[in-house]
Amino acid sequence: MATASLRKGELTRQSIVEHAARMASRVGIEGLTIGALADELELSKSGLFAHFKSKEALQLQVVEFGIERFINIVVKPALAAPRGEKRVRELFERWLDWPKASGLSGCMFVALSTELDDQPGPVRERLVQSQKDWLDVIANCVRSGVADGHFRADVDPEQFAHELHGVMLANHHAVRLLRDESGQGRTRRAFERLLDDARKPKASR
Amino acid sequence: MATASLRKGELTRQSIVEHAARMASRVGIEGLTIGALADELELSKSGLFAHFKSKEALQLQVVEFGIERFINIVVKPALAAPRGEKRVRELFERWLDWPKASGLSGCMFVALSTELDDQPGPVRERLVQSQKDWLDVIANCVRSGVADGHFRADVDPEQFAHELHGVMLANHHAVRLLRDESGQGRTRRAFERLLDDARKPKASR
Repeated sequence: MATASLRKGELTRQSIVEHAARMASRVGIEGLTIGALADELELSKSGLFAHFKSKEALQLQVVEFGIERFINIVVKPALAAPRGEKRVRELFERWLDWPKASGLSGCMFVALSTELDDQPGPVRERLVQSQKDWLDVIANCVRSGVADGHFRADVDPEQFAHELHGVMLANHHAVRLLRDESGQGRTRRAFERLLDDARKPKASR
Repeated sequence: MATASLRKGELTRQSIVEHAARMASRVGIEGLTIGALADELELSKSGLFAHFKSKEALQLQVVEFGIERFINIVVKPALAAPRGEKRVRELFERWLDWPKASGLSGCMFVALSTELDDQPGPVRERLVQSQKDWLDVIANCVRSGVADGHFRADVDPEQFAHELHGVMLANHHAVRLLRDESGQGRTRRAFERLLDDARKPKASR
């Protein structure tokens, strides 16, 4: 009985956090207050307070929710691909598809990155950690590709990760803001140029 | 007399708009209401309404303020540089320096791009137009470099502009969010790789 009711509480909390994540992708994480969420879900404010204790705790759970979903949809399946270029391609394709696959509106992390860059505190810190972790995942995939001889020995994996991030940010801007129909094609070309430069032996450049 | 008092009104409006732009870079453009601005400036709400008529008109003037400043600080001086690679380098350097030179907190356009990508209306439309204009400026600088033989004949100027935008967005993320001390160095390397690929004659690749 105790387990069943814990489970029920857990499920409720999960669905509230998912709703809060969608709300944050509309109004920003700073607009995500317990009061506003209670209004939107037609729940009592005191009931939500009992779940989340504070606005900050709610925001942190929303960020954790996004990170967990990103890991499940993008990171884990990509890491199951063969090492080297295939794995980097799988990361790229899943990352490109992430805003749609996430079930949220756009990419939560892009939105949070500009909203929180000036806002010190635990939510920003958690975001920064997750972004560094993600850049490390990319760099490590490149590093194993270098070790296996798929990429040039002098490729800088961190530089590759930094540039791939830029490729994806430009995609987000072109597709989401400019509604540019050639945006995703340009993104693929930029990615191929990045891969191409990593692949070429230096002697032939 | 009439001119002097018009001038005084104009100066006041300009300084209010500049303050509003700084406020928007902190709280977001949606958080920039006439009431909130009046509170911050300790002015009467009715006085500000007389100046700006509506929240949307205020937001539009803030965007115009940013565009005008960007043109004065980045675009015009860069277009005064010699055509081709020198001009593209001047654009890049001034763009890189823009968040600091703007006197605002970070880059207004990066913040607006993620805040407004889901918000239809005149403010989003004005932003989109300005972003397309800016990508056109970059593409045109590359195009004149192709015409003058500084860049390969088959360089795609729009692709170059799209990728350079990604280079700058990654810089913003690394420097502002991650406080990554190697961020700007990575950005310069990414820019050199982009230039390098545009410069190389295709036969030798």
